[in-house]
Amino acid sequence: MILCDIGNSFLHFYYRGRIWKESKDKLSQKDANEIIIFISVNEQSTQSLLHSHPRCFDLTPLLSIDTTYKGLGIDRIAACNAIKDGVIVDAGSAITIDIMQDGIHLGGYIMPGLAQYRKLFSAISVLDCDLNLAIDLDMFPQNTRDAVSFGTLKSIILMIKNTSKNKKIYFTGGDGKFLSRFFKDCIYDDLLIFKGMQNTIESKIINKGVTL
Amino acid sequence: MILCDIGNSFLHFYYRGRIWKESKDKLSQKDANEIIIFISVNEQSTQSLLHSHPRCFDLTPLLSIDTTYKGLGIDRIAACNAIKDGVIVDAGSAITIDIMQDGIHLGGYIMPGLAQYRKLFSAISVLDCDLNLAIDLDMFPQNTRDAVSFGTLKSIILMIKNTSKNKKIYFTGGDGKFLSRFFKDCIYDDLLIFKGMQNTIESKIINKGVTL
Repeated sequence: MILCDIGNSFLHFYYRGRIWKESKDKLSQKDANEIIIFISVNEQSTQSLLHSHPRCFDLTPLLSIDTTYKGLGIDRIAACNAIKDGVIVDAGSAITIDIMQDGIHLGGYIMPGLAQYRKLFSAISVLDCDLNLAIDLDMFPQNTRDAVSFGTLKSIILMIKNTSKNKKIYFTGGDGKFLSRFFKDCIYDDLLIFKGMQNTIESKIINKGVTL
Repeated sequence: MILCDIGNSFLHFYYRGRIWKESKDKLSQKDANEIIIFISVNEQSTQSLLHSHPRCFDLTPLLSIDTTYKGLGIDRIAACNAIKDGVIVDAGSAITIDIMQDGIHLGGYIMPGLAQYRKLFSAISVLDCDLNLAIDLDMFPQNTRDAVSFGTLKSIILMIKNTSKNKKIYFTGGDGKFLSRFFKDCIYDDLLIFKGMQNTIESKIINKGVTL
């Protein structure tokens, strides 16, 4: 069994403790005997996967979470299935922040991803400079590059601090490890979405004796 | 004397207590006897102004502020000349935040403007929705539109609060009035840049008897 989380930029795979990503135009051949269980937020990439592999199963209809949020992305639902309590920060193309309490999803919000901020500022000619991710967030910036980096990074961090208060924070996604550095007692887990998928596979498929 | 602040989107004018904006392609004819004293961050719009009016004077070389910040935009320098102490939030295409203390500029930073956030989120198909500016910032969002609006608006507000602490906040720029609603005891002043220009004109031109 191979797990696959299809995002907007890449397809992320999990197989036997190993994770890796592939682009939809360069999908590697996988063992045809293995089933690929996937979730997806990108239809084009889903089609690429279905064409590249004979046995694929969409986990989406089996994934759910107790929430009043309308339109929660399937990747966020999967991540929320991995924990009972805490704040999940998935820092990818966008940064999604979701709050879980006693297995219930209390809500969540969305900020631009670091790459989106970078792109946005580089579109304004005078601010055409890469972010300085080593910026000191306790000093007022003294040049344009630091000013943009400070505005970006500190606003993300203040938001996460404001939301988490005494809750445990779980970081995942491409920029999750970097952002986790700014928090004590937090967890960086690049398997969070796969763990949520795995929990659902166990409770809704394996434990019920369903054969795929 | 007409004052003009040339930004990236519009040319902003001040004349006899009245302010208005014009686009560089549709500049109105002004009284040829009046001098236009201007500052600019956009060369193309500056050229349009110079072609449309016979008497223009660039105030840039006379404007300065005590700072170690390298590359501070001339519009930010002008606004800083309007106050001695406080935080200036200029919410236009970008949002610039500058900190003044005893007439000295301590530093500043830059965040995307509300329109930039809007554009950024509308570029991601699933997030193609206008911001909900009436969002309740004390409740976790329960749908995509609110999630994006909350992430945008609350991050801007937390940053300003974190910076200002007990300092007076001066809002200006197109979205300044809207943002000022979230703060007690703040000042919204759409004349801030013009007041800074006026202060410099008085101290460096009029009081020194210079004739333009």
